[in-house]
Amino acid sequence: MKINQFSITPTTPQQRRQELMMIRLLRKNEEATLTPNAMLETLLARIHMASNQPIITKQWLHDLLATPDLALDDWLDKQEPLTNSIFYLIALQLLDFEVAVDFDITDPLTMIKKTGLPTEYHQQWTTTNVIDAFYLLLNTHGKNGQSLIDHLTAEGFLAWTYQLPAEQKPLYFNGKPLACFDPAKFIREVVYIETDMDTDFDGKADLVKAEIMRPRESDDDLSVPVVFTASPYNQGTNDEWGEKATHNVNVPLTHKSTDYQAPKEKSFSINFAYQQVTGHADHATETFSTTPAYTLNNYLAVRGYAIVYAAGIGTKDSDGLQTCGSPEQTDSMKAVIEWLHGNRRAFTDRNSGTEIKANWCNGKVAMTGRSYLGTLATAVATTGVAGLEAIISEAAISSWYDYYRENGLVRAPGGFQGEDADVLADETFSRTKRPADYRRVEQVNNQYINQMSEAMDRKSGNYNDFWDKRNYRHNLANIKAAVMMVHGLNDTNVRPSNVKALYDSLQNSTVINKLILHQGQHIYINAFRSLDFSEMVNLWLANKLWGQDNHADDTLPRVLVQDNKTPETWNTYDHWTAGKQQVYQFNDRRLTTLPGLGIQSFNDHQSEEKYREWCKDPHEWAKALIKDNGQFSRHFVSTPVETDTLLRGTPTVTLRVASSKNYGMISARLVDLGKGKRLTTSPVLFNRNGLELGYHWKTDDLREFKLQKSPTTYKVIASGHINLQNRHTPAQVDNLDANQFVSVNFDLQPIFHRLAAGHQLGVIIYSTDYEYTLRGNEQIEYQLDLSGCQLSIPGLSLDNN
Amino acid sequence: MKINQFSITPTTPQQRRQELMMIRLLRKNEEATLTPNAMLETLLARIHMASNQPIITKQWLHDLLATPDLALDDWLDKQEPLTNSIFYLIALQLLDFEVAVDFDITDPLTMIKKTGLPTEYHQQWTTTNVIDAFYLLLNTHGKNGQSLIDHLTAEGFLAWTYQLPAEQKPLYFNGKPLACFDPAKFIREVVYIETDMDTDFDGKADLVKAEIMRPRESDDDLSVPVVFTASPYNQGTNDEWGEKATHNVNVPLTHKSTDYQAPKEKSFSINFAYQQVTGHADHATETFSTTPAYTLNNYLAVRGYAIVYAAGIGTKDSDGLQTCGSPEQTDSMKAVIEWLHGNRRAFTDRNSGTEIKANWCNGKVAMTGRSYLGTLATAVATTGVAGLEAIISEAAISSWYDYYRENGLVRAPGGFQGEDADVLADETFSRTKRPADYRRVEQVNNQYINQMSEAMDRKSGNYNDFWDKRNYRHNLANIKAAVMMVHGLNDTNVRPSNVKALYDSLQNSTVINKLILHQGQHIYINAFRSLDFSEMVNLWLANKLWGQDNHADDTLPRVLVQDNKTPETWNTYDHWTAGKQQVYQFNDRRLTTLPGLGIQSFNDHQSEEKYREWCKDPHEWAKALIKDNGQFSRHFVSTPVETDTLLRGTPTVTLRVASSKNYGMISARLVDLGKGKRLTTSPVLFNRNGLELGYHWKTDDLREFKLQKSPTTYKVIASGHINLQNRHTPAQVDNLDANQFVSVNFDLQPIFHRLAAGHQLGVIIYSTDYEYTLRGNEQIEYQLDLSGCQLSIPGLSLDNN
Repeated sequence: MKINQFSITPTTPQQRRQELMMIRLLRKNEEATLTPNAMLETLLARIHMASNQPIITKQWLHDLLATPDLALDDWLDKQEPLTNSIFYLIALQLLDFEVAVDFDITDPLTMIKKTGLPTEYHQQWTTTNVIDAFYLLLNTHGKNGQSLIDHLTAEGFLAWTYQLPAEQKPLYFNGKPLACFDPAKFIREVVYIETDMDTDFDGKADLVKAEIMRPRESDDDLSVPVVFTASPYNQGTNDEWGEKATHNVNVPLTHKSTDYQAPKEKSFSINFAYQQVTGHADHATETFSTTPAYTLNNYLAVRGYAIVYAAGIGTKDSDGLQTCGSPEQTDSMKAVIEWLHGNRRAFTDRNSGTEIKANWCNGKVAMTGRSYLGTLATAVATTGVAGLEAIISEAAISSWYDYYRENGLVRAPGGFQGEDADVLADETFSRTKRPADYRRVEQVNNQYINQMSEAMDRKSGNYNDFWDKRNYRHNLANIKAAVMMVHGLNDTNVRPSNVKALYDSLQNSTVINKLILHQGQHIYINAFRSLDFSEMVNLWLANKLWGQDNHADDTLPRVLVQDNKTPETWNTYDHWTAGKQQVYQFNDRRLTTLPGLGIQSFNDHQSEEKYREWCKDPHEWAKALIKDNGQFSRHFVSTPVETDTLLRGTPTVTLRVASSKNYGMISARLVDLGKGKRLTTSPVLFNRNGLELGYHWKTDDLREFKLQKSPTTYKVIASGHINLQNRHTPAQVDNLDANQFVSVNFDLQPIFHRLAAGHQLGVIIYSTDYEYTLRGNEQIEYQLDLSGCQLSIPGLSLDNN
Repeated sequence: MKINQFSITPTTPQQRRQELMMIRLLRKNEEATLTPNAMLETLLARIHMASNQPIITKQWLHDLLATPDLALDDWLDKQEPLTNSIFYLIALQLLDFEVAVDFDITDPLTMIKKTGLPTEYHQQWTTTNVIDAFYLLLNTHGKNGQSLIDHLTAEGFLAWTYQLPAEQKPLYFNGKPLACFDPAKFIREVVYIETDMDTDFDGKADLVKAEIMRPRESDDDLSVPVVFTASPYNQGTNDEWGEKATHNVNVPLTHKSTDYQAPKEKSFSINFAYQQVTGHADHATETFSTTPAYTLNNYLAVRGYAIVYAAGIGTKDSDGLQTCGSPEQTDSMKAVIEWLHGNRRAFTDRNSGTEIKANWCNGKVAMTGRSYLGTLATAVATTGVAGLEAIISEAAISSWYDYYRENGLVRAPGGFQGEDADVLADETFSRTKRPADYRRVEQVNNQYINQMSEAMDRKSGNYNDFWDKRNYRHNLANIKAAVMMVHGLNDTNVRPSNVKALYDSLQNSTVINKLILHQGQHIYINAFRSLDFSEMVNLWLANKLWGQDNHADDTLPRVLVQDNKTPETWNTYDHWTAGKQQVYQFNDRRLTTLPGLGIQSFNDHQSEEKYREWCKDPHEWAKALIKDNGQFSRHFVSTPVETDTLLRGTPTVTLRVASSKNYGMISARLVDLGKGKRLTTSPVLFNRNGLELGYHWKTDDLREFKLQKSPTTYKVIASGHINLQNRHTPAQVDNLDANQFVSVNFDLQPIFHRLAAGHQLGVIIYSTDYEYTLRGNEQIEYQLDLSGCQLSIPGLSLDNN
């Protein structure tokens, strides 16, 4: 077991004592008057939440070990000197590590070291040492995925703070707000924010509903910041609709004419009226009981952050249509921040004209969320809107073309063959959940979706006006908010190219940015035992939103990457891309430094039976691809690497290739070849509801990547696809004749991958990708002129110690 | 979609009006003065939880449909007469059914009928009709697995009731307590109950910890009943220990001598002292923050029931050892009820001698829980302890021999090959979680577990003194509590024979009993959409614990069985066993009415490769068994049944058989043969956290059995095993010579199974069961003398309409 903590911020001795006194663990003069053992006993008694009766505390101490043979109370009675072993044997028990299962009671220090827990060792423990070590211990993560202070909080340690006057809150501990806000007293309210657009053509400015959950204290003397999640899913989804709308991908690619005219997207009405303000209200008049929540937000809620959810235009109780990534959708979310910041109007309801202000807000907002949610955080950040101080964008799209298309091809997000912008719009158009409202807008919506289906141009797969409007990378220079990016290196849904583009651009700016790359697919990472992600966020937002001078930006690593070889291992770096650009030529079946010779070919056609089977179960196709060599793909493999090699950045493939037809597509997969136990594809649940986010508050399930039970022989680490008629740009059609050799150069997905010593690098060149591309199953012969084929990849060898 | 409700209890018109007034939905004179439409509008306005502002209610009504083309507010404005279609179109929307996805807005009544929702139709709707229909609607289940009243409750509809004086609570609606207790105000306390035994040989009476969660009102003028779950798992488990202690099952059966002397279990010390009472406390001095909870208990907690958990002897914070089903364990749980009922002593802590009474309790207790938990409920019920009014025992063991043994064989619970009483004791001995406490008891525990391993006698597999002590069926006549039994017909962990024995015995007694058989394995059923189980329990316990005269026993069916053919279908019956006893002879490969002739044989030995593979993955063996015919098993198949046939009761197999060695075992599986889509093995999750158990309280995940995506050709519906040396009883060893023909007669697991028209019944006779028995892989030839072989099974044909 390994625990990695990055949120412990440096403090002065004085600060530590002040904080311990503030949370009533330490009293004045105790440091000067108590022996080290008495100090320890005092601290233990005060964190014993089951009772304040000394006899029950003694009962508890009598069940803990101080040494392999002495109960803690008996050891205290003996007044023997405190040692490292005693302190950390007690510490391990407080952190819920288990005797015999996790560690040997005769040797706690080995466990401490193996796990990577922070320590302070002393030859002779003084009372000062005890206080400092205990402070550190409170900030240390235990077996159940949280720091001791958060664990105690979940047991009620801070319940007394609920009664403190608002102006004394939040209490900060090690630079982070503590959970001192009573969730039973949260205020929940609904407001309707007015936008400057009319996307449903009803002649009125679209209103957008926002759901707000904030501490009671924000009605008193405490202005609180906001954590805002923009989620088009939050008001419900139309899953059956989405399934019906899904496109057939079992169709052939076609030849594109060079004078191809891309369809245009229609504009929205600009003739609309704003609502008349008829009065003002101090308090919202509409409430809600519950809304789907990101557990990270729940963690932050009891720590004083107001939590806001909005689903934007085209969702239940809001106006407008689902435009799937358009500037209008971004503006509808930006409007929420403008209102929170005091720059926009909102109403208590949709009709009365009663205006309401966010008087309880300190004007500072962060955005959170994964996938579409993180995408909208990125999108809003590119508007440079005032009040948005930080975004934590997880698995976020930075250009929708990279989500549904690639280099002139229709290419699906992993697991969602046939999905497209119009399908997602259908799925998230939750105005259907208000049946009468939906009846009124049904026709307008149908017309809009029809033109969207045209404009997105599935026929050509080209980049056009529609996708250009949904490319947030144009406006990255506008970003003012600090940006924390989180992305799975194995995310085939929102691919890492999305975060790489954002990350690279920010390196040329003054925007504060942090990058976390994990080994997951399209997942959240806030309930891993091996990483203190929630506290990293809390530390960072304390700085960005509460204005705490807590060294957050210095404390948090610039680039944090989960290792793909050793479980529970997170390493820090200064950059994503690094190392020498290694160029491999395709030489016969090898990747070498010598250029290859001759022509190799493969045919994309499969038997009807195989074709049907693979369409039904593309995983089977993927397995067959690895075994194939020459039938429908060509494989090129490097020699084994001598030492562990870290591949960091974007691999590119250059090919000289011909298709037997006047159209064609090429795919490439980069593979780590070598037998070994790899991490599980998904994190494994090990403690259902095991993570308590507060005292009598919500929970989360603890998960962790483990090593798979059996070794595997390969792992796909990147892929890429290109239309042979988009050799220059995805927007421009190049001519192609049958059997004409052309050169193409395209990126694979960016990587950060440890290629273990003895493993080989492989690249597979093929055409139809049953998991991601159209599947025409045509008789097309592809020829590779090896003299013009190469793979380029940045990386560096590591010393093997 | 089908919804089955059994908890709606008959009420008088007057009662309905009183209840509606009590929950502030109806006011005096409204029935006499309002038009039907005005009444409906009034009721709708009052259940609109988002706001009490008329303009926001109007906004809500404007988004609901009254007819396919009229919003509800517009229809109200038009003052047109209310119709069945209008009322139930509105009803479906209130129940969260979705337009287009679930039903056609032009035809709501078809959906109502198909789903099985209760209705009241009228030619001309009067105000009286509206009130009665709305009352029924409040009790009707919607798409999200709860009644409208519970759905509204989760939105805050009853939050005002938190402030009512204690003596006015609980509020009852349709015979059931409403969720009128504030979970944020629950009192949580720990007490230590003194028992009359000393199972850890420390000279002191064992104390047992109990965790109590009860409404604040129980400190005022409201005595509340208790729902008690006895769970040895609740204080944590030693999973790694359990794995280590698991027995090797890849060993051969051996010959048993007829003068075999069974080992005896040692007794516990009877020389111990009770604690001195030194004082009395009105309130507990120890608290707790959270404990693992059964979601049904959470549902009941906000409805006024105090919830108590105890893990019993041998668990964290209690004294004693883990005895796995012994009378001492039962007594330690019985002690909890005695204390709650005022007949036993408890202390505020383990040492002070301060006594505490359960003054807040009305003395009435029910027990709940599944598996080991339900087992202990059954066990305690057989003591006839005063105060225990009802048990809901789910998937409960009634004799531990039936859990770990069968007819003279070691036979594992499904999925747990190699587990035994000592393994389970290790797993649940959570005193390990208090390291110093464990160190003090380590040696005593090791000695005890060693003698338990002897006493349980894995060597012979015989029934003996050890198992006899753990057979609660001896004392079924003592049961006074009403018994609700819940069991999965596909439970291979705790097999249905356990519940059948209990059920059968209760049919000869005056004990009120209810039986629910579902199509699951070892699962809970309180979060299915298709069944109102939580409310059935609430209705029943309102009667048993709160003394409500609510016709609970008449309203709830005697026997309720989930159909195995049609999803979401629950049928009521008067008995489990019914129908003609059908006897099938084994005739060549057929099951017929004519006796068979000649000898058939099979050999239990497998190739080393197959053996290893099947030990590793017994599911593969199970698949091979179905395909095998003659190698290591013999199959006998009936002709197809002409109409659906309901098989109800315990099938028995009689065989004339010889083993080529002087020992041997025979297994049998009963199979439903026929191609068809069957129910999924496990319920499918369809709404994570979708079931709200109260307002800002806990949630559960909604699940349901669906039809599997692909048809299957067979399903095993029962099995049985017998040692050829236990032909008379599991306790008595019969001699066996090699190749000696003997007659054996044994039960298969009881069934309640619809054999679809066209399906055949099959029985497979074999020896080693890789999933359940020892696996010796010996060269043993078994011979069946067909003239002495038959299958007997109760059942009856159903008309096919």
